[in-house]
Amino acid sequence: MKRLEKIRTALRDVPDFPKPGILFKDITPILSDPLLFGDTIDLMAEMAQGKKIDFVAGIEARGFIFGAALARKLNCGFVPIRKPGKLPYKTYKAEYALEYGTDSIEVHQDAFPKGASVYLADDLLATGGTAAAAAGLIQKCGAEVALIGFLIELSFLQGREKLKENPVRSLITF
Amino acid sequence: MKRLEKIRTALRDVPDFPKPGILFKDITPILSDPLLFGDTIDLMAEMAQGKKIDFVAGIEARGFIFGAALARKLNCGFVPIRKPGKLPYKTYKAEYALEYGTDSIEVHQDAFPKGASVYLADDLLATGGTAAAAAGLIQKCGAEVALIGFLIELSFLQGREKLKENPVRSLITF
Repeated sequence: MKRLEKIRTALRDVPDFPKPGILFKDITPILSDPLLFGDTIDLMAEMAQGKKIDFVAGIEARGFIFGAALARKLNCGFVPIRKPGKLPYKTYKAEYALEYGTDSIEVHQDAFPKGASVYLADDLLATGGTAAAAAGLIQKCGAEVALIGFLIELSFLQGREKLKENPVRSLITF
Repeated sequence: MKRLEKIRTALRDVPDFPKPGILFKDITPILSDPLLFGDTIDLMAEMAQGKKIDFVAGIEARGFIFGAALARKLNCGFVPIRKPGKLPYKTYKAEYALEYGTDSIEVHQDAFPKGASVYLADDLLATGGTAAAAAGLIQKCGAEVALIGFLIELSFLQGREKLKENPVRSLITF
């Protein structure tokens, strides 16, 4: 079985989480297996092949897991994009729509040098709202989004529509 | 300058965060520098030298950054210990005291095989409440806490007192 097929097979379907009718893709069986976790990070690194990457940015919280491991793999710096009030220094903030209401994320204003080339990594592309907000923050800092890379894409939610100004890749599509 | 001294020097002091009178140690300048981030992970891996480590566990959210990178470095599985309601499968929950009130964390009940040897990693040892709760969860799963490793220890808060049944190491002490 190929690496990608092993990763896909290891995802655990949890019905009715976080609410009735949703089939949640649990990534913890991948994280807890060193071969699968290693292959996932290797494959997410390969998605950036041919691109110059200066920084990996990860979105709180699951994006920290993939982003930090990817940053080490690519020998880049890691920049956390966090929920409001968590970053201690001066920040830029971006709002995005939820099913009901809005949420927001922040990045340090001095997180990237001007013109830096950034790989934004996250586990899941659903509606794309969070990733679009994160990409906007990276650009507001004067850096460039070289790639937005996901482990899983739920293509029926059409998240790519919100990200169409950016290069987007995902390992596994449902 | 030695690796550890470079890491210590790169920490950014942010006064009055998250509230007046607190001098916050901002770790983002370490994360964003590939040499410093790499050295930090190498040194945190060296803290476990001579111990058998099967899994690295990280506490949401900053512990995910160090835990995931450490798990790849040590070629171990990574187990996330999360805020309530975030993990989709059956969980164990542990409460711990805050300055005012309580908070809690969860781990998947099947996160570790019985007898697994676990390195619990986090960025900061302050009062030790969260780490003690996390260590208890690991043991409740039937696994063993081989090491609790921190990047920073605020020794004047005496967090080691709460962790004294466990081996504890930290890279930098204030």
